[in-house]
Amino acid sequence: MLYDRLAQDLYAEICHIPLIDPHSHIDPRRPTAKNLDDILGYHYYSELAHSAGMDKGPLAKEVDPRERVRAILYHMQFFDNTAQYTWFVEIARAFLGFQGDRLTIADSTWLCDAAEGLMAKRDWEQPVWHRTNLEKVFLTNDFDDPLEGFDTERYVPCLRTDDLVFHLDQPDVRQRLAKATGVEIGDLASVRRAITKLFEQFTRKGAKACAISLPPDFCPRPEPDGSLPIKPGSEADAKRETAYAVFWLLAEHCREFKLPFDLMIGVNRRVYREGVYQGQDLFDQRTSLIQYAELFNAFPDVTFCVSVLSSGQNQELASYSWIFPNVVTSGHWWYSNIPAYIEQDARARLHAVPKTKQIGYYSDAYKLEFVLPKYNMYRRILAQILADDFIRPRVYTEAQALELARLLLHDNARRIFDV
Amino acid sequence: MLYDRLAQDLYAEICHIPLIDPHSHIDPRRPTAKNLDDILGYHYYSELAHSAGMDKGPLAKEVDPRERVRAILYHMQFFDNTAQYTWFVEIARAFLGFQGDRLTIADSTWLCDAAEGLMAKRDWEQPVWHRTNLEKVFLTNDFDDPLEGFDTERYVPCLRTDDLVFHLDQPDVRQRLAKATGVEIGDLASVRRAITKLFEQFTRKGAKACAISLPPDFCPRPEPDGSLPIKPGSEADAKRETAYAVFWLLAEHCREFKLPFDLMIGVNRRVYREGVYQGQDLFDQRTSLIQYAELFNAFPDVTFCVSVLSSGQNQELASYSWIFPNVVTSGHWWYSNIPAYIEQDARARLHAVPKTKQIGYYSDAYKLEFVLPKYNMYRRILAQILADDFIRPRVYTEAQALELARLLLHDNARRIFDV
Amino acid sequence: MLYDRLAQDLYAEICHIPLIDPHSHIDPRRPTAKNLDDILGYHYYSELAHSAGMDKGPLAKEVDPRERVRAILYHMQFFDNTAQYTWFVEIARAFLGFQGDRLTIADSTWLCDAAEGLMAKRDWEQPVWHRTNLEKVFLTNDFDDPLEGFDTERYVPCLRTDDLVFHLDQPDVRQRLAKATGVEIGDLASVRRAITKLFEQFTRKGAKACAISLPPDFCPRPEPDGSLPIKPGSEADAKRETAYAVFWLLAEHCREFKLPFDLMIGVNRRVYREGVYQGQDLFDQRTSLIQYAELFNAFPDVTFCVSVLSSGQNQELASYSWIFPNVVTSGHWWYSNIPAYIEQDARARLHAVPKTKQIGYYSDAYKLEFVLPKYNMYRRILAQILADDFIRPRVYTEAQALELARLLLHDNARRIFDV
Repeated sequence: MLYDRLAQDLYAEICHIPLIDPHSHIDPRRPTAKNLDDILGYHYYSELAHSAGMDKGPLAKEVDPRERVRAILYHMQFFDNTAQYTWFVEIARAFLGFQGDRLTIADSTWLCDAAEGLMAKRDWEQPVWHRTNLEKVFLTNDFDDPLEGFDTERYVPCLRTDDLVFHLDQPDVRQRLAKATGVEIGDLASVRRAITKLFEQFTRKGAKACAISLPPDFCPRPEPDGSLPIKPGSEADAKRETAYAVFWLLAEHCREFKLPFDLMIGVNRRVYREGVYQGQDLFDQRTSLIQYAELFNAFPDVTFCVSVLSSGQNQELASYSWIFPNVVTSGHWWYSNIPAYIEQDARARLHAVPKTKQIGYYSDAYKLEFVLPKYNMYRRILAQILADDFIRPRVYTEAQALELARLLLHDNARRIFDV
Repeated sequence: MLYDRLAQDLYAEICHIPLIDPHSHIDPRRPTAKNLDDILGYHYYSELAHSAGMDKGPLAKEVDPRERVRAILYHMQFFDNTAQYTWFVEIARAFLGFQGDRLTIADSTWLCDAAEGLMAKRDWEQPVWHRTNLEKVFLTNDFDDPLEGFDTERYVPCLRTDDLVFHLDQPDVRQRLAKATGVEIGDLASVRRAITKLFEQFTRKGAKACAISLPPDFCPRPEPDGSLPIKPGSEADAKRETAYAVFWLLAEHCREFKLPFDLMIGVNRRVYREGVYQGQDLFDQRTSLIQYAELFNAFPDVTFCVSVLSSGQNQELASYSWIFPNVVTSGHWWYSNIPAYIEQDARARLHAVPKTKQIGYYSDAYKLEFVLPKYNMYRRILAQILADDFIRPRVYTEAQALELARLLLHDNARRIFDV
Repeated sequence: MLYDRLAQDLYAEICHIPLIDPHSHIDPRRPTAKNLDDILGYHYYSELAHSAGMDKGPLAKEVDPRERVRAILYHMQFFDNTAQYTWFVEIARAFLGFQGDRLTIADSTWLCDAAEGLMAKRDWEQPVWHRTNLEKVFLTNDFDDPLEGFDTERYVPCLRTDDLVFHLDQPDVRQRLAKATGVEIGDLASVRRAITKLFEQFTRKGAKACAISLPPDFCPRPEPDGSLPIKPGSEADAKRETAYAVFWLLAEHCREFKLPFDLMIGVNRRVYREGVYQGQDLFDQRTSLIQYAELFNAFPDVTFCVSVLSSGQNQELASYSWIFPNVVTSGHWWYSNIPAYIEQDARARLHAVPKTKQIGYYSDAYKLEFVLPKYNMYRRILAQILADDFIRPRVYTEAQALELARLLLHDNARRIFDV
């Protein structure tokens, strides 16, 4: 909760701005939670519970979901200081009729009952969507997603390309790709043909972005010709060369198909190998956007929406976005998505980057219920920055500050992704 | 504007401290702007306008200056959130009689008229100088600058050495050096003779510093003898070896001629190759002052005034300056020169570095009109830090806090540069 | 001093929490200062005085201690802006009857007299211990420390292992080790035997932790067998291999003997070679906890209490501790131990890391008198964070906030180190 009156008032106004959420992992065919287990199954809770001492037993498939909920709620007492805990309390308040300030294992039964009662309703998506004031939410679709069975005006498809760039040596990925495109992969030229097919299919179905997450040492460059062999079970060097070359092809297709390219830079996968599902990845702060300088130079017509994982990297991002017309700052990602870092990262961007080149936030959510509390966290911080750095120093009037908020939460995403 | 009463009062007092601005790019023979085009031609505006969507057409030489001004003012609506925009509004208020809060393309005509009317006056330099409360401003002079035709008491010469360190393989640089010193470059020993000449000439004309900007991977070391060949059109390795050796020679001359050496660490040139003039350089956060440890150890009698480009690097700078007697923190440079970063960087220095070893700020300006708004940005932040971290916690009285401000803005520069 | 009323009240309450100080360099046989020279001899003063212009003359052994005190007090006028200066003023206020706000060379005589009068008393340790509200303080013991002659309930032994990891090629270290354990070092297997002896001896005497400081490029990995030769006067490569292998052995012993392992990551030794004693070390921000990923994976049962030297590294630490159950955040170390960095580092941890996995602070003190002012600095910052980020936004009640403070200052250390 905000306690500064001006910031409170701004926050209330900002909440009226409808959201275009440009990055999530929502399944449009099951966009909401069905029960509390779907909420507390989010890796932010399982990984914190595990970090605070919970073994992985309660996370096994065969465990009664209510037992799992109890196990996580029990361990929440050890991380009730975190931002993630406040998201959960806010979900309970916004969607489950909770009116208190804290939730503990003692609330387990009624919470589960309440969640099942409400979330089981056939139209549960509607009140969540409405209360969240959502206009559109972007998806993260596998390349062989048929993109059918949902409203692509609400749920905007986005081609996720991690598999294409990093796993073309895996037989199952090759098979999925062959099945989706009719192209058997042999060399880079065949990969190009397959990617063209995918972009045709995705854009025909309303896809509005291409996205990828990248390790800290990634340093893409073009491959001079199409003869590079792309084989199963490659060595590390060959895999890297393939990754750079395929990534470059994707950028060429973004240019051709006029799609922005979301780059989520800095994640090392499976650092904690025994971690819970989706709770294994970490980062190495030693990375630089200079690794992307050739890319940004080579594709002036492609908009790169860049997310980073550290505040050090955010200073580079603010500077690269201030200089490169095609580099846009995007949200507050993962380990940077806590108030202490959002605050300084957002302030730096607001002081240095043209306001039309900033995508303020995205939810990264797996279930619609998380869009509201995560955006609230961001909106409160934004309201305080607007109060302290813009309105009180008389840089902006309140109306102008709210226009800036509207750019960050809605208009920039609409323009950049053409939705 | 500040809105904290104590900080406001401090700010008002701090503004009475005359400024010694120890780093600028002002041309002492044309120190002020002649028109609005000279103001908005500053790369901070052309690069932000370009970043926000302006093509480079309006920047071409043959374009009517008023058209260029209109183009940049038009694009300013997309970056009116930035610190740079507030500098411009402050210039209009301080020097052009503007009384409002915002400037848009609608103000274009009267602004141009007002600017031409005022700036064309023969003595325009005087009111700007006076209103800015300037005592001295340092220049950045090419090695073959004759240093004549201006008052070196006001405009303090400083030998810029980038060409000597990085471009001695270029025929025109060699020719300019031969012309300036009478020395033809063949090996390191001849470079030494040329540099001695330059230091003699510069110090005779009142130069008070030697300065250079350095890339993130620079790691200087001495060359054992003078026989290193310095040839035109060298390979990358040879160029690097030359750069390190010549840099070391410069440090030796700083020692001999008792000049502080300004090191501006971290810039990569021409990262955005199609960027506007002076809007192409960026940085790589992966750099460390450990690369300069040998230098700092080897030259205990040379004062190194160090500027860095990132907050990560600032933490190193605060620590190196806390330990090395000959390392001084210097200003808030370029991409670090926005409030969000100035604030945290300045606070860290004020908590950790002896107050006599901090050069608070420099303008880096190309035209005198920018000294005032840039220093005001810094002075406001400084006033707030003094209020919050020194006066309110009763570490300092107001009088003591103002003495500290005087060190940062005037006395330290006077002592360190001996002016 | 705090000036926010809520933070003041919290601070007053927090000061009632008894301290378990989990890292210091106190000599339990001479835990307190005997005179002012013992206070101002702390490297934080000698190095700042030297940095601000004092030559090393007054630090020589043969100099009259009162002359040394005068020299340092004289130079304090140049660093009275620093956190270190405020520690000194607070010591004078808490222990020497000083009632003013500032100390200068004019106070030299009475300060020396007062210090000698009080500190010479036979029971001086008691009022210092009591006034500091200390419960336990950890030591940093050389491997051949007999651990006798003091109360190990108050002064908790901790095995410092820097010599074992980095200096096994030095004849005197080998001799000391042979003397302490009866094992002559020849290969890795013999080192293992010696280390087992040390752990047996230390744990028998009440040791509760193993500790080491590590350079930025350290990247430990196991050695497959015990035949690695460990010889005197090795080359750099062999030394590094030895260091990694011996470090790994220590982790194995921490597992076997159930001792937490304090990792203090990032220090380069002797960077400023002519610096004062203990005022020569600095850091390189380019380091990553990814270098310890194998270690954290290999020893799930060992608790690693990790300290880092930069705010960039702190963001990694907060994230690694959020994911790895066996990684705990520990204190605010050395160059990070100034308010500007403590504030942002502590906030990030409090927003992201389970509250049971944070060791809030340690004093790193050489004399008991420093525990109080250093903890006060931390407690004030903590009180302000609790007020602003927890109580005012109604995340915690005041009582809950104080419980969090108790975890950070006492309970977590008690549980983690089993004291």
